[in-house]
Amino acid sequence: MVGGGQGAFIGEVHRMAARLDGHIELVCGAFSSKPERSKASGEALYLSPNRVYGTYEEMLKTEATLPEGERMDFVAIVTPNHLHFAPAKMALEHGFHVVCDKPVTFSTEQALELQQLVNKTGLLFALTHNYTGYPMVKEAKAMIAAGELGKLRRAIVEYPQGWLSTRLESSGQKQADWRTDPKRSGKAGGMGDIGTHAENLLEYISGLKITKLCADLNTFVEGRQLDDDGAVLLELESGAKATLLATQIAAGEENTLSIRIYGEKAGLEWRQMEPNTLIVKYLDRGATIKRTGVGELSEAAQFATRLPAGHPEGFIEAFANIYKNFALSLLAIKKGKQPNALMSDYPTIADGVRGMRFIDKVIESAESNNKWTDF
Amino acid sequence: MVGGGQGAFIGEVHRMAARLDGHIELVCGAFSSKPERSKASGEALYLSPNRVYGTYEEMLKTEATLPEGERMDFVAIVTPNHLHFAPAKMALEHGFHVVCDKPVTFSTEQALELQQLVNKTGLLFALTHNYTGYPMVKEAKAMIAAGELGKLRRAIVEYPQGWLSTRLESSGQKQADWRTDPKRSGKAGGMGDIGTHAENLLEYISGLKITKLCADLNTFVEGRQLDDDGAVLLELESGAKATLLATQIAAGEENTLSIRIYGEKAGLEWRQMEPNTLIVKYLDRGATIKRTGVGELSEAAQFATRLPAGHPEGFIEAFANIYKNFALSLLAIKKGKQPNALMSDYPTIADGVRGMRFIDKVIESAESNNKWTDF
Amino acid sequence: MVGGGQGAFIGEVHRMAARLDGHIELVCGAFSSKPERSKASGEALYLSPNRVYGTYEEMLKTEATLPEGERMDFVAIVTPNHLHFAPAKMALEHGFHVVCDKPVTFSTEQALELQQLVNKTGLLFALTHNYTGYPMVKEAKAMIAAGELGKLRRAIVEYPQGWLSTRLESSGQKQADWRTDPKRSGKAGGMGDIGTHAENLLEYISGLKITKLCADLNTFVEGRQLDDDGAVLLELESGAKATLLATQIAAGEENTLSIRIYGEKAGLEWRQMEPNTLIVKYLDRGATIKRTGVGELSEAAQFATRLPAGHPEGFIEAFANIYKNFALSLLAIKKGKQPNALMSDYPTIADGVRGMRFIDKVIESAESNNKWTDF
Amino acid sequence: MVGGGQGAFIGEVHRMAARLDGHIELVCGAFSSKPERSKASGEALYLSPNRVYGTYEEMLKTEATLPEGERMDFVAIVTPNHLHFAPAKMALEHGFHVVCDKPVTFSTEQALELQQLVNKTGLLFALTHNYTGYPMVKEAKAMIAAGELGKLRRAIVEYPQGWLSTRLESSGQKQADWRTDPKRSGKAGGMGDIGTHAENLLEYISGLKITKLCADLNTFVEGRQLDDDGAVLLELESGAKATLLATQIAAGEENTLSIRIYGEKAGLEWRQMEPNTLIVKYLDRGATIKRTGVGELSEAAQFATRLPAGHPEGFIEAFANIYKNFALSLLAIKKGKQPNALMSDYPTIADGVRGMRFIDKVIESAESNNKWTDF
Repeated sequence: MVGGGQGAFIGEVHRMAARLDGHIELVCGAFSSKPERSKASGEALYLSPNRVYGTYEEMLKTEATLPEGERMDFVAIVTPNHLHFAPAKMALEHGFHVVCDKPVTFSTEQALELQQLVNKTGLLFALTHNYTGYPMVKEAKAMIAAGELGKLRRAIVEYPQGWLSTRLESSGQKQADWRTDPKRSGKAGGMGDIGTHAENLLEYISGLKITKLCADLNTFVEGRQLDDDGAVLLELESGAKATLLATQIAAGEENTLSIRIYGEKAGLEWRQMEPNTLIVKYLDRGATIKRTGVGELSEAAQFATRLPAGHPEGFIEAFANIYKNFALSLLAIKKGKQPNALMSDYPTIADGVRGMRFIDKVIESAESNNKWTDF
Repeated sequence: MVGGGQGAFIGEVHRMAARLDGHIELVCGAFSSKPERSKASGEALYLSPNRVYGTYEEMLKTEATLPEGERMDFVAIVTPNHLHFAPAKMALEHGFHVVCDKPVTFSTEQALELQQLVNKTGLLFALTHNYTGYPMVKEAKAMIAAGELGKLRRAIVEYPQGWLSTRLESSGQKQADWRTDPKRSGKAGGMGDIGTHAENLLEYISGLKITKLCADLNTFVEGRQLDDDGAVLLELESGAKATLLATQIAAGEENTLSIRIYGEKAGLEWRQMEPNTLIVKYLDRGATIKRTGVGELSEAAQFATRLPAGHPEGFIEAFANIYKNFALSLLAIKKGKQPNALMSDYPTIADGVRGMRFIDKVIESAESNNKWTDF
Repeated sequence: MVGGGQGAFIGEVHRMAARLDGHIELVCGAFSSKPERSKASGEALYLSPNRVYGTYEEMLKTEATLPEGERMDFVAIVTPNHLHFAPAKMALEHGFHVVCDKPVTFSTEQALELQQLVNKTGLLFALTHNYTGYPMVKEAKAMIAAGELGKLRRAIVEYPQGWLSTRLESSGQKQADWRTDPKRSGKAGGMGDIGTHAENLLEYISGLKITKLCADLNTFVEGRQLDDDGAVLLELESGAKATLLATQIAAGEENTLSIRIYGEKAGLEWRQMEPNTLIVKYLDRGATIKRTGVGELSEAAQFATRLPAGHPEGFIEAFANIYKNFALSLLAIKKGKQPNALMSDYPTIADGVRGMRFIDKVIESAESNNKWTDF
Repeated sequence: MVGGGQGAFIGEVHRMAARLDGHIELVCGAFSSKPERSKASGEALYLSPNRVYGTYEEMLKTEATLPEGERMDFVAIVTPNHLHFAPAKMALEHGFHVVCDKPVTFSTEQALELQQLVNKTGLLFALTHNYTGYPMVKEAKAMIAAGELGKLRRAIVEYPQGWLSTRLESSGQKQADWRTDPKRSGKAGGMGDIGTHAENLLEYISGLKITKLCADLNTFVEGRQLDDDGAVLLELESGAKATLLATQIAAGEENTLSIRIYGEKAGLEWRQMEPNTLIVKYLDRGATIKRTGVGELSEAAQFATRLPAGHPEGFIEAFANIYKNFALSLLAIKKGKQPNALMSDYPTIADGVRGMRFIDKVIESAESNNKWTDF
C-alpha cells in the first residue's frame, strides 16, 4: 500500500475493504512520506517491520526482488491525486498489478500514459469508483441492459455534500486541505472529487457515454481556490438527456449521491444512503421496491451480495466488491485462467481516463459562453 | 365560474377548494362552450337553472345587472390557457374580482394587459399557483426570510411527472389533448404547465428573482408538438444558483414536485407528495423534521393549517388556502377594511406576468447557442 | 348540527367534510349548550338566525315542523361522548337520519338502544370512524377480501399519540379536559378515544371479528382519571392473532395510526400519516407500493378518490368520504332507490355497538388475572 | 473457529466481522462435524492444513499444547444451539477466551454453568447479540442513560421476519432445518432465534430489566414443531411497559427489527434496516434525525463508527464492533491492562443467561392461563 498512514481516511477504507473477504492480506506498505509515520502506521497494522518502507520507490524496488509467493501481488495507491501517477507507473513497470484511488491521476495526459502502460503490460488496474460496487447499482445496470426501461430519455444524478460549506481547509482539516488545493487535487475541486463519481455512476448504470455537456461551476466559499459547486446539463449517446449536480456546499447534506433514470417504459431510483433499495417505477401500476437479497435479482447483483435480505450491506461492502473482484481476477490469472465476466466487473483505467476527460470538459464548458461543449 | 364542466379535472378542484371553508358559495356558471353541457353541469351542482349560462359573456353581462348581495362576487376561470384572457378581461371590466388558473394567459402581452387592468380597477386577482398554499411551503419561506439559512447558495427545484410518457393526446384524453396543443396551451408544453409552478415555488420560497437562465428543452414523444421535458440552469438575485427540472416523461412519477434550498448555515427540503413535512438540515448537527401543526411554526404556516398535527392536509387544503385568503381579503374589503398580510398571501397577476416571462425566456434560451439568457 | 361551536375541533372537521363535495349544505344548528355561543357560531357560519337554536331539543322539534325541502335532512352530532345518545335518540324518533361522532354513546346499553331504534325506523345512521374513509384502506380491505394475502395470520394495529404526555387537562385545554373525564368520556380514556378507531380499522380491513383479548391498561400521568396507554393481545375469527396498541403518552408522536397485516401469501402495511401509500409485501419478490390513483385499484378505492395520482388526499377527504357516501345513500333513498354497495360503505350503528363492547371487554380484561377474556 | 463450514451462513458473518478491523486473524478451525468438509472449508480459507481439525476436541487439545504466540488466542463458536455448550465449556477449561453465537446454550442450566466457569476462570466471553453493535443503538442507550427521555413509560420492540412463512424446513434449507428442530434449536423457535435479540436490545437500550411478562405463542405453519410467531406484554423495572413481537411468518418482511421507546420528555425510534438513523421525538417541537457520524454524538456511538457521515455502515460493521471490542479487551489484558469501558461494551455470558431465562419464561407464560408470569 502506498499512502494511508495514521489519520488518513481513505487508506483505512481500502484496508477494511481488502480484508473483508479473506482473499487479501496486507503484507507491506509505504504509508507516509515521513518514514517515522510510515513505521508507526505499519506497526499499528501488525506488519513485519522489514516490510514497512520509507518510500514507495524503495518498496517497489525491494518487493520486486523478493521471491514469488513472498512478494506482494499488487499495490494499492491511496495518496492524494497528485501522487497517484508516479507510483502507479513505477508499479506497472515493475510488474505489479495496481488498485488506485480516484480520480486516477492529476492530468489527463498521465491517465492516458497509464492506460498505454496497462495495455502494454497486460497487468490488472482497478480504480475505486466504489459506488458501482453496490448490489442494487448492479441490478439497475442489469435491468437497463436487459431493456426493462425501454429506450432511456432522462437521467438525474446528484452528489450533494455539505462538509465544505465553510472554509474547512483553513482549519487544518487534512481531507479539506489537499482536496481544495489545485497543486494536489488538480484543476477541479468538487467536480473531480465527487463529480467524477457521479459521471462514472451514470455511465455505468445507463450503459451510455456522455456526448456533450453544458457546465456551470461555482466557488461559493470565499478564498477557496477550486470549485465547490457545479451543475451540468448532459447529452448521452442515443439522445438521452441528464443533469448532474456535484456540490460540497449543500449545507447539512452528508454524502447524498443518488441517481434516477427514466426510459420509455419505466424509471429507476437509487440512493446511496439507503443503498439496498432500488425503486422501479412503472407507467401504469405501483412501483416495485427491489431490495438486496430479495427475490430474483440479476446474477451481478447476487454476486455482489454477502448477506440474506434485511441485513444491511453498506459502504465498505460495496468498496470490498471492487477488491473482491480484483482479487478473484488475480487468483484466476495466477491459475492460468481467464477471469469471468462477474469478477471482471470493476472500474479500470478506462474509467479513469473517462473521468479525467470529464474534468477537462466540465472546466472547458464552465469557462465558455457556448451552450454546448462536445465531450 | 367559467369552464369546469362535467369531465373537467381542475374545475372540480376549484369548487372543492372554494367550498372547504364555508366562505364561498357557487351561485352561477358558464361551465362549457356547449350550452347543453353547461346546463347539465349546473344541475349536477344543484344550481338554480337561471344562473347557469351558455357563455361567459352572457354570465358576466347578466350578473352585472343583478343587485348587490344577489349577484356573484367574483368569477373563477378554469378553462384551458387560451381561454383565460377574454373572460378575465371582461370580468375586470364589469367590476368582478377574478380567480384564474395558471399560466395566467396565452401570451405575455395578454398578461401585461390584465396587470394594467387590475392595477387600474383595484380589483382582486388571484392566480392558483396552489403549491404555495401548503403550510410547510409557507414555513420554508418564513425561515428563509428570517435568515435561518443564511445567504442562499444553491437550490434544486424539480417537477417530474410521467403521465405524458406515451402519446396520450392521441387517445382522446382531454387533459393531454389541450395541454400538448400549441393553439390552446401556448408556446410551451410542460414548461408552461408545470415548469411555471416550479419557477413560482422557487421564487416564492427563496424570496429571490431569477436573473438569468440556460435551458435545454426536449420533446421525447414522437409526434408531440410541444416540449415534454426540460432542464434549466438558473442564477438568482444575489448570486445563488439553481437547477429546475420540469418533465412529463419521467416514467412512473406521479406529481413529484420538490424543492431543496441550501444557504450558508442550513438547508431545506420539501416534497409535495408528503407535504406536511419540511426537513431542515444543519451544518453540524442532526436534521430537524418540521411538521404541519407541530411545535412553534411561523404565523403564516399556522394560518394555513386547519387540523392538529398528524391529521394530513393535502392538495385540496393547500388549494383552498388560496381561496380562503382571497375570500377573507374580499370580505375585508366589503367591510371597508384593508386585507392584512396573512390574507393577502396568495399569488396574483404579478406572479402571472412573471410566469409568462419565464416561458418566454426558457424558449428563447432553448433556441439559443449562448449559454446564458438574461431574464 | 348538534355541538361544534366556536373553539371545538371536531365540529369544524365535520363541516369541512360535509361541504367538500357539494352535496350537503349546513342549514341549522344547536352549536353549544350556551345559547349565546350557539348564536355566535351560527352567525360565523353564515346561517340564518332563525335556524340557530339554543338547544338540540328545540332544533329537532322545530325542524320537524318545517315543510319537506325546507327542513334539515339529517343531523350531525359532534358533542362529547356523554351527549351523543340523547340527541341521537330524539333525532331518530323525529324521523331524522343521523351522523354521529365516535364512540357512539356513553355506554353499551345506549348503543344497543340506538341500534334497535335504527333498525325499527329504517333511518340511516353513520358513525365517523373516519380512518376507514381513506382510499388505500379500502384497497387493503378489497385485497384481503379477494384473497390476495391468503389466510390471515398476524396483524399489528397501533395508534400512538403523544399529546397527553403531560397533564394537559389541568391546563384547561378543552379537548384534553373532557376526554380524560369519566363523566363525559365514559369508562375508557385513550382506549375509547383512539383504541376504538384501531379496533374498527382492524375489523374493517381484515374482515374478521375479534373473538378474545388480553389487555394491559395503564395511566402514566399522575392524577389522570382514565387510561392513557394500553396494549392488547387479540385473537380474531379463524385463528389469526393481533396486537393493538393505543397510547396517548408516546412522547413526540402525532397521530401515528398504522396497520400491518400478514397472511399466508403476502403482507400489507398502511400508515395514516402517509395515507396515500399502501405497501404490499410478498414472500418471494420485491414489495409493491400501491398509491392512491395509480394503476388498477379496487372499485372501492377508486370511488373514494377525488384527484389524480400524486395530488395528496388527506384527513378531511377521508372524513368526507363518509359524508359523501351517506349523502349519496340519502339522495338515492329520496329518489326511491336502494343505495348501492359503494355508497353504503360507511360505518354504522353496528360499528358503534362493536366499539362500545370493545371498551367493555378491554376494561374487563385489564382488571382480570385471567389471560384471555372472550369478546 | 468451531462450525461455520462451507454453506453455513453465520460462520462467514463471524469471519467477515472478525477480519474487518485487522486485529484478528483466523489461524485454525474445526469447521464441520464431517472432517472432509472441515478440511475443504479450511483450504478455502487459506488456512494451513495442519491447523484444520476434524473435531473441536482435537482442536482445543492440540492448540492448548502450542506455544503462546503461535496457538490461537480465543475460539469462536458458530454451531447450532445444541452444540454451543460443550465446546464453550471445554474451551474455557483449556484456558481459551470464547466468542459464542446466541442463544448461548440449549438450556438455562448450561448457561448458568458457563457463567460460573467464566467467573471462575476470569476469561472473556462475548455473545454475538450483534444488533447492540450499531452506533445508533449505542447512541439511544447513551441518551436514555443521560436522562434525555425522562422516566421511561412505553417501549415497542418488534422483530418480524417472513422467511418461515412456508414450511421451508421440509425443503432441506439448512438454516430452517435446525432452527425449527427442538433437538437442535431448544424449546423455543422464533422466540429463541430472534425473540432473544429483541429482548436483549430492549434491555440494552432501556437499561431496564424485564420484571414480568404475558406471552402468546403460536405455530402457524402446519407440521412445524416450534413457535414461529409470538407477542409478549412486558413490564420493566420502574413500571415501564413494553410489547415485544417476534414472528417469522410476517410474509414479505426481511429482517425488520425495530425499537421505539417513549419517556416523559421524548421518544426514540430505531430501525435495523436503516441502522444509521435514530429519530428523536419531542413533546413540543419537530423531531431530530440523529445520524451516524453527524454532529455531537455519545462517546460510545463515535467509538463504534468507522466512516464519515453518509457512508452507510451495515450489519457486518455492527457485528464487527463486538469482535473489535472483544479484541481490544483481549489486547489490553495481554498487555496487563484493564479493558476500558468502551472496549468492554459487548454482550457477555450474563446476557446469555438472561436470554435463556427469557425463553423459559415466555414458554411458561404461553402455557399458563394466568395473565402475568414473573421474570
